[in-house]
Amino acid sequence: MNTFGNIYRLTSFGESHGKAVGGVIDGCPAGIELNFKLIQDELDRRKPGQSKVSTQRKEADEVQFLSGIFEGKTTGTPIAFLVWNNDQKSSDYDNLHEIFRPSHADLTYFAKYGLRDPRGGGRSSARITLSRVVAGAIAKQILMLQGVMINAYTSQVGNIKLSETYSELDLSATESNIVRCPNGEIATQMIDLIQDVRKNGNTVGGVVSCVAKNVPIGLGEPEFLKLHAELGRAVLSINAAKAFELGSGFSSAEMFGNQHNDSFFSEQNVIKTRTNNSGGIQGGISNGMDIYFRVAFKPVATIITEQETVDIHSNNVKFSAKGRHDPCVVPRAVPIVEAMTAMVLLDFFLLNKRFL
Amino acid sequence: MNTFGNIYRLTSFGESHGKAVGGVIDGCPAGIELNFKLIQDELDRRKPGQSKVSTQRKEADEVQFLSGIFEGKTTGTPIAFLVWNNDQKSSDYDNLHEIFRPSHADLTYFAKYGLRDPRGGGRSSARITLSRVVAGAIAKQILMLQGVMINAYTSQVGNIKLSETYSELDLSATESNIVRCPNGEIATQMIDLIQDVRKNGNTVGGVVSCVAKNVPIGLGEPEFLKLHAELGRAVLSINAAKAFELGSGFSSAEMFGNQHNDSFFSEQNVIKTRTNNSGGIQGGISNGMDIYFRVAFKPVATIITEQETVDIHSNNVKFSAKGRHDPCVVPRAVPIVEAMTAMVLLDFFLLNKRFL
Amino acid sequence: MNTFGNIYRLTSFGESHGKAVGGVIDGCPAGIELNFKLIQDELDRRKPGQSKVSTQRKEADEVQFLSGIFEGKTTGTPIAFLVWNNDQKSSDYDNLHEIFRPSHADLTYFAKYGLRDPRGGGRSSARITLSRVVAGAIAKQILMLQGVMINAYTSQVGNIKLSETYSELDLSATESNIVRCPNGEIATQMIDLIQDVRKNGNTVGGVVSCVAKNVPIGLGEPEFLKLHAELGRAVLSINAAKAFELGSGFSSAEMFGNQHNDSFFSEQNVIKTRTNNSGGIQGGISNGMDIYFRVAFKPVATIITEQETVDIHSNNVKFSAKGRHDPCVVPRAVPIVEAMTAMVLLDFFLLNKRFL
Amino acid sequence: MNTFGNIYRLTSFGESHGKAVGGVIDGCPAGIELNFKLIQDELDRRKPGQSKVSTQRKEADEVQFLSGIFEGKTTGTPIAFLVWNNDQKSSDYDNLHEIFRPSHADLTYFAKYGLRDPRGGGRSSARITLSRVVAGAIAKQILMLQGVMINAYTSQVGNIKLSETYSELDLSATESNIVRCPNGEIATQMIDLIQDVRKNGNTVGGVVSCVAKNVPIGLGEPEFLKLHAELGRAVLSINAAKAFELGSGFSSAEMFGNQHNDSFFSEQNVIKTRTNNSGGIQGGISNGMDIYFRVAFKPVATIITEQETVDIHSNNVKFSAKGRHDPCVVPRAVPIVEAMTAMVLLDFFLLNKRFL
Repeated sequence: MNTFGNIYRLTSFGESHGKAVGGVIDGCPAGIELNFKLIQDELDRRKPGQSKVSTQRKEADEVQFLSGIFEGKTTGTPIAFLVWNNDQKSSDYDNLHEIFRPSHADLTYFAKYGLRDPRGGGRSSARITLSRVVAGAIAKQILMLQGVMINAYTSQVGNIKLSETYSELDLSATESNIVRCPNGEIATQMIDLIQDVRKNGNTVGGVVSCVAKNVPIGLGEPEFLKLHAELGRAVLSINAAKAFELGSGFSSAEMFGNQHNDSFFSEQNVIKTRTNNSGGIQGGISNGMDIYFRVAFKPVATIITEQETVDIHSNNVKFSAKGRHDPCVVPRAVPIVEAMTAMVLLDFFLLNKRFL
Repeated sequence: MNTFGNIYRLTSFGESHGKAVGGVIDGCPAGIELNFKLIQDELDRRKPGQSKVSTQRKEADEVQFLSGIFEGKTTGTPIAFLVWNNDQKSSDYDNLHEIFRPSHADLTYFAKYGLRDPRGGGRSSARITLSRVVAGAIAKQILMLQGVMINAYTSQVGNIKLSETYSELDLSATESNIVRCPNGEIATQMIDLIQDVRKNGNTVGGVVSCVAKNVPIGLGEPEFLKLHAELGRAVLSINAAKAFELGSGFSSAEMFGNQHNDSFFSEQNVIKTRTNNSGGIQGGISNGMDIYFRVAFKPVATIITEQETVDIHSNNVKFSAKGRHDPCVVPRAVPIVEAMTAMVLLDFFLLNKRFL
Repeated sequence: MNTFGNIYRLTSFGESHGKAVGGVIDGCPAGIELNFKLIQDELDRRKPGQSKVSTQRKEADEVQFLSGIFEGKTTGTPIAFLVWNNDQKSSDYDNLHEIFRPSHADLTYFAKYGLRDPRGGGRSSARITLSRVVAGAIAKQILMLQGVMINAYTSQVGNIKLSETYSELDLSATESNIVRCPNGEIATQMIDLIQDVRKNGNTVGGVVSCVAKNVPIGLGEPEFLKLHAELGRAVLSINAAKAFELGSGFSSAEMFGNQHNDSFFSEQNVIKTRTNNSGGIQGGISNGMDIYFRVAFKPVATIITEQETVDIHSNNVKFSAKGRHDPCVVPRAVPIVEAMTAMVLLDFFLLNKRFL
Repeated sequence: MNTFGNIYRLTSFGESHGKAVGGVIDGCPAGIELNFKLIQDELDRRKPGQSKVSTQRKEADEVQFLSGIFEGKTTGTPIAFLVWNNDQKSSDYDNLHEIFRPSHADLTYFAKYGLRDPRGGGRSSARITLSRVVAGAIAKQILMLQGVMINAYTSQVGNIKLSETYSELDLSATESNIVRCPNGEIATQMIDLIQDVRKNGNTVGGVVSCVAKNVPIGLGEPEFLKLHAELGRAVLSINAAKAFELGSGFSSAEMFGNQHNDSFFSEQNVIKTRTNNSGGIQGGISNGMDIYFRVAFKPVATIITEQETVDIHSNNVKFSAKGRHDPCVVPRAVPIVEAMTAMVLLDFFLLNKRFL
């Protein structure tokens, strides 16, 4: 299943070292004037080779639209797009034909599909997330027409963590550094750590935090399409994501009801909560407050150090990765988290049309 | 959307104080001999009034099957079932007609649907999860035919936490105490804490851990139906759930690649990993190792203490809950977590049929 | 798959001789005041034993709602309903345990599910359409709020056919006779034919025509959810349906473009067509004109005459049906055709919400 | 909704005069060796400009695959493909910017999406069916591995009809003439009629018949995914299709049960029917006999003769088409009917996996 969404739907295609990656967006409202520069900007935020903390694979990643747009506006018909793969150094993977790389998808894909595509992970490559960024960038623009603003940022790399909550930060500073952390000092420490890690042929994990403001009240469905469950699913499907928490998250487990409850109050006929442990979602439905959540990413599995593993004949072997790769996936994951959030919110916005 | 699943699908219905709650299971394989006692046992684990740490609402919760079963076996046609609501003390909610209870779904439902069903939360009540338990209990039985075993347990209540990992515990001890914690000493502490909390008219959060053993390799889809994303979505849709982590989870954010990677080795032609930070899932697909994850639950929102809130006319008001409720949702959430896990795993088992 | 629809969705359950048949309606807008008498009226139009041209099986067919309705209004949550099966004369089927009845679903169900439910066809019984009638009756009421009127009628029984088109008939006369043919003279001939057929232990086919007036322009999707394709699918899924034609239908194959094209003209700023060969749908989307189509039903397969057939051991055997059955399914199919039409139109009405 | 299918799914994109048309096939089994020449052959059967009875628009229609295939075999990941649009003579449509062409989708699209793409019908163009042919050609190859053979042919053009049933014809002769009618004499008459019609600037309708042999018993679902309802839906969604009938179809309405029933008999332990009025499907499920059905196509709406119509300002105007077009769509519809049939049958084959 390579389709995501209920009304606003992305069908994604492509492999890391195939001809192209891309997708088809279905259910996009008609008559929306698109800002193509903003779409390309988002792709550039995800692009490999963008800085010293990312992989050095070089790709132009220029998106080309094939359908669904006429005179700069959406037509209501499917929007197909693609990005050609240029820098297909499959030679990086020459020694991989028969190896299952530890903590990669090689073994599981082989077991599922009965074949081994050794070209950089094939469909399991993070390159595939490019399609999500395009669909998310369009969703973002439509949401902006409703006033919705989505901002993700790096809040942790290894043991270096932001101590501020999102409301204590200036989120407009996120893009001012290459790790996408809105606190410049912490950002520098994160960059240093990633540089160290890269030098050692190692990798490191981290956390992305995300905030959506001005989300209208009423998005989400009562039972199985709870908004936070769908947001969780969306970001957990990003490569290397391991954990998700909404609002108070895991810390709520230690709290008492009288600490955790968010009191309502009314101000100029707008109902708000004094605290926001709920993370903007109650009973699976947005309550008009800021939606915020955190996503943990594991360290990238490709490391230079020699590792023990197994080949397709079930032999125990040793293995050292070559291949260019990210020392830390988190800075490039920031726009992907935003994209998935935008897709979910727009989808639920479109689902939520009241009847009469 | 009140349907969950792709092939094995539950459509759920009912409200807390309506006539009945129930569901329709579609896509259940034909010819499966059902053990009805096991289904009722699972319902009894979820049942209100089962112990001093749960709500005192009394319900028989006896499930009645209406279709899809002939001579004790599934027929391949939809399995409809219901449980009549008996103990409908709506009087508990007499003072609620116009109040939005803090951290409940009252406001968001009102905003979404334009009406206020004051009878115990209506569709947002945890009573609705009963349907999940029935569908999960059937899924469990079918999975057991494949050797799959699913065990959830309480690993944290407030600040009382298990220090052992799942493999250091005797999970068969889970049902030996009323909080469903497999370590008896810790269980006692948890029970004491919940008793205290109840006395104070307060509530407390907690964590459920879950393990699935003998899951066949190859379940999950590469891009949008990643197995852990669907498990996360499934359990995040349980009432009061706030966070999910697979395997190493949030702790992976602090780790380096050479610490986190799970080395493969082959033993008698079976490929295993030496560690299991992956939590049994790599690239979104099960790898044959144990699947394990944790789910955080917030403290129940119904507390006796007076709280500030707002009514449907946007007046700021004070409010104290009556109504029977759980001081801690976690012990009763254990079978629900298992049920959701079983539904997802069976669904993916059925999705995963290879071609020729 | 026992769920029908995209937004307004019916999940159906039950077997002919099981405990109950029923369904769950999801996606029904909130706040709709339901007229329960109209729902029961529709069920009574479908009910067995209603006249001398229908089967003599007696069922009260009183629908009971379990959820989704509060103080007479829809709440936006799933509407579950059921009808208990009372007149379960399984003895009618005593000689059927091992027989595959000709032109029934016995063989195909056995081949698919590996079992034989001999109780009156089980899930393949026309009794199952009852759930469709309930969901359709609610859809009809909601459509009526938009001014949409749906009328089906019997236009052919065996070789007795109406010569008038729908616009030449007084459709309010449909319910004035037991075959539901709006031309009283033709109706009498049809009734006579069915009586004859019944006396001979035989059955006969027929055609239902259906008209939907005041359907808003713009319902339907361009490529795969073309409105007429979905209407066709909906009515072709009714038991015994064999053929569907929209507007000019099969006769269009003999026509030339200059005969078939429907000229547009504008009258008081409303655009209409002079003819309506299109049947109210162009390019898969409603154009505001009357939607009309025809559905052919084969003669019921249960006949008293001895037939050759095969048993589950592949023996060639002789067989004569007992069991009460309809001599002609068409009069009771009329409300089912209306119900399916209403479900599709409401679903597409809800799908068609424009964006800004 | 531009996605078709449950397991084997085509997501289609593109407009007549946009950059490209294409699609993404999801759910294709892994490890299938594809014959690319057969795929191109099917496209050539659909291609414009292929003969004097088709439109003279010239397109190479060479399909390019972008993903999902490695070393000539399917990988189980999405298969994306496209065909560039070359011969985009939008000048043909210069006079159309503000006109709603009679019996085209111009008005309905405008009403639905609020815009008018005057370039040859945009998304409603028959050019879009190209994507179906590619997905169908792959489905056909997979079905052939199971022995399933699908053959469609032209059985009627205007008032010229084949009198033979499919079993009296040599279907291998279908491709021996440009109208794709397996009876050479009738084919000549059809060609003459189409030539006449073209000379007059007119168009004519027709019928395509289709047979699928060796379909395994058990495909189809009992209630809402009845196999014939899905086949009907699939072919009714082809441009210009107006009617569908399975097996005995509309003629069944005139028949009696004892004429229509298909007696079973057993021969060497294979159960067959003596007649096949059922058209190979009973109770919505394939019974192992030949599946056959007919689809009616209206005359193409583009005619040279002056017609009355309306423009986007609701003015009554006169209009004469220029633009190249087909005088009769039926010969080019033959491969599209086969493609849709193949997609449905493969989808149901994959849905039908039994459990243990």
